[in-house]
Amino acid sequence: MKLNRKLRMGMVGGGRGAFIGAVHRMAARLDGEIDLVAGCFSADPKKSKLSGEDLFIDPSRVYATYEEMARKEAALPADQRIDFVSIVTRNNTHFAVSKTFLEAGFHVICDKPLCFSLKEGLKLREIVRQSGRVFALTHNYTGYPMVKEAREWVRAGKLGKLMKIVVEYPQGYAISALETGTTGQISNWRMDPSVSGLSNCMGDIGTHAHNLARYITGLDVEEICAELSTFIPGRPLDDDGNCLVRFAKGVKGIIYASQVSSGEENNLNIRVFGTKGSLQWFQENPNELIFKKADSPQLVYRRGNGYLSAAAQGATRTPFAHPEGFIEAFANVYRSAGKAIADAIEGRKPGKDAYDFPTIDDGIAGMAFVETAVKSGKAGAKWVKFPKVFAAAKT
Amino acid sequence: MKLNRKLRMGMVGGGRGAFIGAVHRMAARLDGEIDLVAGCFSADPKKSKLSGEDLFIDPSRVYATYEEMARKEAALPADQRIDFVSIVTRNNTHFAVSKTFLEAGFHVICDKPLCFSLKEGLKLREIVRQSGRVFALTHNYTGYPMVKEAREWVRAGKLGKLMKIVVEYPQGYAISALETGTTGQISNWRMDPSVSGLSNCMGDIGTHAHNLARYITGLDVEEICAELSTFIPGRPLDDDGNCLVRFAKGVKGIIYASQVSSGEENNLNIRVFGTKGSLQWFQENPNELIFKKADSPQLVYRRGNGYLSAAAQGATRTPFAHPEGFIEAFANVYRSAGKAIADAIEGRKPGKDAYDFPTIDDGIAGMAFVETAVKSGKAGAKWVKFPKVFAAAKT
Amino acid sequence: MKLNRKLRMGMVGGGRGAFIGAVHRMAARLDGEIDLVAGCFSADPKKSKLSGEDLFIDPSRVYATYEEMARKEAALPADQRIDFVSIVTRNNTHFAVSKTFLEAGFHVICDKPLCFSLKEGLKLREIVRQSGRVFALTHNYTGYPMVKEAREWVRAGKLGKLMKIVVEYPQGYAISALETGTTGQISNWRMDPSVSGLSNCMGDIGTHAHNLARYITGLDVEEICAELSTFIPGRPLDDDGNCLVRFAKGVKGIIYASQVSSGEENNLNIRVFGTKGSLQWFQENPNELIFKKADSPQLVYRRGNGYLSAAAQGATRTPFAHPEGFIEAFANVYRSAGKAIADAIEGRKPGKDAYDFPTIDDGIAGMAFVETAVKSGKAGAKWVKFPKVFAAAKT
Amino acid sequence: MKLNRKLRMGMVGGGRGAFIGAVHRMAARLDGEIDLVAGCFSADPKKSKLSGEDLFIDPSRVYATYEEMARKEAALPADQRIDFVSIVTRNNTHFAVSKTFLEAGFHVICDKPLCFSLKEGLKLREIVRQSGRVFALTHNYTGYPMVKEAREWVRAGKLGKLMKIVVEYPQGYAISALETGTTGQISNWRMDPSVSGLSNCMGDIGTHAHNLARYITGLDVEEICAELSTFIPGRPLDDDGNCLVRFAKGVKGIIYASQVSSGEENNLNIRVFGTKGSLQWFQENPNELIFKKADSPQLVYRRGNGYLSAAAQGATRTPFAHPEGFIEAFANVYRSAGKAIADAIEGRKPGKDAYDFPTIDDGIAGMAFVETAVKSGKAGAKWVKFPKVFAAAKT
Repeated sequence: MKLNRKLRMGMVGGGRGAFIGAVHRMAARLDGEIDLVAGCFSADPKKSKLSGEDLFIDPSRVYATYEEMARKEAALPADQRIDFVSIVTRNNTHFAVSKTFLEAGFHVICDKPLCFSLKEGLKLREIVRQSGRVFALTHNYTGYPMVKEAREWVRAGKLGKLMKIVVEYPQGYAISALETGTTGQISNWRMDPSVSGLSNCMGDIGTHAHNLARYITGLDVEEICAELSTFIPGRPLDDDGNCLVRFAKGVKGIIYASQVSSGEENNLNIRVFGTKGSLQWFQENPNELIFKKADSPQLVYRRGNGYLSAAAQGATRTPFAHPEGFIEAFANVYRSAGKAIADAIEGRKPGKDAYDFPTIDDGIAGMAFVETAVKSGKAGAKWVKFPKVFAAAKT
Repeated sequence: MKLNRKLRMGMVGGGRGAFIGAVHRMAARLDGEIDLVAGCFSADPKKSKLSGEDLFIDPSRVYATYEEMARKEAALPADQRIDFVSIVTRNNTHFAVSKTFLEAGFHVICDKPLCFSLKEGLKLREIVRQSGRVFALTHNYTGYPMVKEAREWVRAGKLGKLMKIVVEYPQGYAISALETGTTGQISNWRMDPSVSGLSNCMGDIGTHAHNLARYITGLDVEEICAELSTFIPGRPLDDDGNCLVRFAKGVKGIIYASQVSSGEENNLNIRVFGTKGSLQWFQENPNELIFKKADSPQLVYRRGNGYLSAAAQGATRTPFAHPEGFIEAFANVYRSAGKAIADAIEGRKPGKDAYDFPTIDDGIAGMAFVETAVKSGKAGAKWVKFPKVFAAAKT
Repeated sequence: MKLNRKLRMGMVGGGRGAFIGAVHRMAARLDGEIDLVAGCFSADPKKSKLSGEDLFIDPSRVYATYEEMARKEAALPADQRIDFVSIVTRNNTHFAVSKTFLEAGFHVICDKPLCFSLKEGLKLREIVRQSGRVFALTHNYTGYPMVKEAREWVRAGKLGKLMKIVVEYPQGYAISALETGTTGQISNWRMDPSVSGLSNCMGDIGTHAHNLARYITGLDVEEICAELSTFIPGRPLDDDGNCLVRFAKGVKGIIYASQVSSGEENNLNIRVFGTKGSLQWFQENPNELIFKKADSPQLVYRRGNGYLSAAAQGATRTPFAHPEGFIEAFANVYRSAGKAIADAIEGRKPGKDAYDFPTIDDGIAGMAFVETAVKSGKAGAKWVKFPKVFAAAKT
Repeated sequence: MKLNRKLRMGMVGGGRGAFIGAVHRMAARLDGEIDLVAGCFSADPKKSKLSGEDLFIDPSRVYATYEEMARKEAALPADQRIDFVSIVTRNNTHFAVSKTFLEAGFHVICDKPLCFSLKEGLKLREIVRQSGRVFALTHNYTGYPMVKEAREWVRAGKLGKLMKIVVEYPQGYAISALETGTTGQISNWRMDPSVSGLSNCMGDIGTHAHNLARYITGLDVEEICAELSTFIPGRPLDDDGNCLVRFAKGVKGIIYASQVSSGEENNLNIRVFGTKGSLQWFQENPNELIFKKADSPQLVYRRGNGYLSAAAQGATRTPFAHPEGFIEAFANVYRSAGKAIADAIEGRKPGKDAYDFPTIDDGIAGMAFVETAVKSGKAGAKWVKFPKVFAAAKT
């Protein structure tokens, strides 16, 4: 980022008690290049106001509605108004909030999944394109340095021709309620189809698993056979899903995600197998990346070392074995998107590899993944083809 | 075992250079209760003879053919002839050799998979039943003490109601050849349909994975959707397979096996998720069994401790943290089968839970697993119902 | 922190290229409650100026000398001047800079080790006492939530009566140069006795190891037998040290630190053994704390869970298995010290357990550790008694 | 082993209920090249007899005393009498039993520690030399393939010039009694100075730790500073010891052993640091050996792979990731000693590197280690020089 000032950020959502909003703020703050200066932190204006006070925001820039925020911020002098907005609301509002700010001329960093449905996502893509603004999606797990290293390995052919991908994302948080018989208590908006969309588990964490595979291997999905389950009685949406996946280029895969895997915490992990070697990465131990190859000792690559790729080294803030974690990875999305926003502000146009953050296309792919998996699941786990969402995009 | 002598064992197969025959012998020998006294170690009489010399076997009891061996051993005085035969030949001969020895009145310990086809297996089951002899199948991974502990947990309800099972069995040994372009060199009999049967990977290791799930959970499979692949060009059989599995009682699962997972060695592992907790066991670290549960520290149970079940403690030979491994687990199959054979010799009839070794039914289940997976795979990974192989058995 | 504004921080040291200064800034920034507004970032005024620009600091508050900074900041109106200074310079300047700012009325957060010698440290303690200001020392490893959990366990008697403590701190970074024969290249100020003090390795990382033991167990050292070595030829100070330690209450221990342990990165770890159980914590895997006890499964406690102590839960920013690391732990020192500073500003006087950050006494203990170890080492690893530095302090 | 028959083994000690005797028998049996044919299994003739029955030994060769056994076995025809005796009695009888059998012309495999005192050990060395018989000591941990690999690395210079060795051997089994207040219950012969010798913990497991370092690095100890403790009240001997060690060639080290490390099981481990790299091996995970080096990914070497040294490959019985453990390592001592015995029987004299098992010299070094550590401990942890036990031996 080469602006001679900090970027000015606004936030929609993320009021008191919200987990992900606080993470976005820490991520934005970490490198000292972004200031949070405005926000509409809650649909409840009182809560929004209190949240603004917690965050030491000038009360005049704490808004009751996001529409008011977009309008009033746009009306501020150029040297005061926000540069971009961070959207950390529920799935079903991403589209409308993004549209409003993009059309008001602001750049956008939006939480995942992209929106409520693939159809909405495709409309949003058009709006992003027309706006010419930066749109970043916080698929934060791709922000980890060792995930970037993994991508470099695949790109450089270190694994040879890819054959197989296995991605797991077991969590167990939804099980406590089942165990205690109080399933109502954990009934949150993710389980409400009118807020969450077609899927709970696939949308919330399956999209992360899919995105991780896509990021590292660069492969799109061609077909999915998904066995979706609802183990917690009375739930309207899935809480577990096992998918067989056919990726491009004949690569086979398994993607599974679960919120009822008792005792699992946040165990996202990926293994990619090629003809020359395989890689393994576990989110709960994110500073290591393992390389295995027939007839060779296993290699444990560790974040912060000079033998890593430029991509991995550039995404690092501390020396080796001074562990970095979730917030730092998340901050890498903000850092790279921030760079793009600064470039846009100053009119620089570096090549397309200048940035490394998830875009609207990643969001579209995620929505397509959810819809395909759900369609397959509803058909009793039949193979369903992935929609051609990138045909136009790639020509 | 309460005989006032050692059991006398014969062996078919396992000549010089054979891996699994040597393992069977170490397993048989470990507890000092079994003596190898006769054998037909190779289809090549010269090699059989040399192998017999290596093993210090009386030359008069090293035979040129297994038929000769069965016949001549049966003709020996009761205090000299073998009590049982260990069969460590290729898949396509298990049926005929087993039949010959069973019908000659000998007990049998046979390597897995059971035989060449499910049809053959069902015939063999009839022969076993009619013979009244002990028939043990060396699904050795169930011999590990911590696998027995896992089964006890499921039986005791420690995991609550089961929801999900994930079994992985990645190996990479077949990939070396692919990498070096010398695929011909690793062309072994497992890849020859006339020897191996319908499947390579599913038959060789997929059956172990399936057996492990069945042993621990007691659940039969109801339906399989299997994506089988042959990644090494020119191979007639599968070298990789990913299966979605529907177990009895609504339990969902994934079973995958692979021989082309670069750098993987023998990474069989299982996770079972229930409403009250989950378990994890990794064959490469077999002395530990992990229990996870929401809102509780993870528990690492370790072999050799007094807090384990009687089943786990009884399958152990050394104190905690004096690691036991593959051979000891294998020896547990021999120990329990040996006990059954000794009981049979002396006419004791303990209850059906007196023994803990894989039986003909486990072999039938394995053959059914292979045939169902192959049928599904050939149909393009459609769901295929498991055959009703136990209907008669259970009434 | 209950100020209705952010705290204003100044920094001395930490100019371009400095590792630890950048860490302090990220740590200060993370929670959005501290703003860096002034600094003297280098002894070289030009570098200081450029560093200030990098950090978007108002140029009028980027100073050429720390004395100027203290004087001019003190002269600013109360609603503009810094609340505290963060000192991230070399060991031999900590005393003078701290003294200057304390005497100018500012609170201080200072990097470790406390200063150049124990004698200097004792003088500084007097100055701190007389100033009435907050003085925090960034022994950051005690900021990890699971280290706080460990302390709670000891306090609550979970381990029973303590018997033994083992602390290791192997690094290998100094070995590269040895290997390549370019020892000159890594010759940094830590190896210069006029800057670093009596010791390199003991001062730089041995003090962390000692502090970790002291924090978790609350035990002071009574006697040390230290074998200090200089393995890299031509070095004036130690690069490795093994210490037998006699703690208070008959507890025995080993503390070792090394910078020539080839391939080790930053492998600080501690094990504490008591009559009822033991604990283990590894800095490179900081989100876990292990409890072992005879005749019980091992327990793995993991950060972010509700079963942890209030101390551990209060030091956490993300849910379980969203890994936290070095920066977050460091930020906990800033957060707690910031709370003390805010309280001081507003005249609140909570009890002495209200805060949890390393103080001047921890610094004194560290300097005493270094001097005792060095004295023992120079005597050929004889037992040397720990000086009575806390006698006065405790009465 | 090239005898055209199995070796015939006798055993002294190891009656019903004895742990280590059973291990020796499994180790001896594993490769099918040794038969147990005679024994005096207990000082109690009745127990000896029953133990002989358990083991299917010809009652005429189960003896009431070891003297009778030596005499009568020596009187048997050459093609019947035992080739060697395995001694698995308590420390204080090793000398007399060994002497008796050596002088009766038998080879000996003896459990560790060598004997009751260094003085006894030196006398035994003379007897061994005069007898011309094979004498092997079961420091079994050097039997692990990956320990052999480690030794090869040091020999080949893979670590560069050695600088530092750290060996740990924490156990916790003695703590249960302390915790429950029933210290009397675990009062076993190891705590009886008249049986065990000068030391409990150093003699029982400290010698293993020392032997492991000596085996891998080839370095003798020059000086020891040992802090020995007795944490369990009322015990006459040490139950914990921390030693600073000066090895030959300027190598520094730490060796510690403990039986009161709550919750530890059998956690022997070693790290060796050299100028070019370091190695780490943990007995509880014995199939792996880790190599670390500055600026390089960590390497995990795994048993059973073709990239290992001949020494490691030759000590292996199963393919990679078919885990081997304690018994297999123990069996390697028997295998190599058996080879030496067979060679002696047939008059072959291969070079001195033909065998790889611990000898009388390893036993002498162990006794010297114990006595030096105890002497240092009693002096309040002063440095004590290692006795010159090898001067004569080496000239």
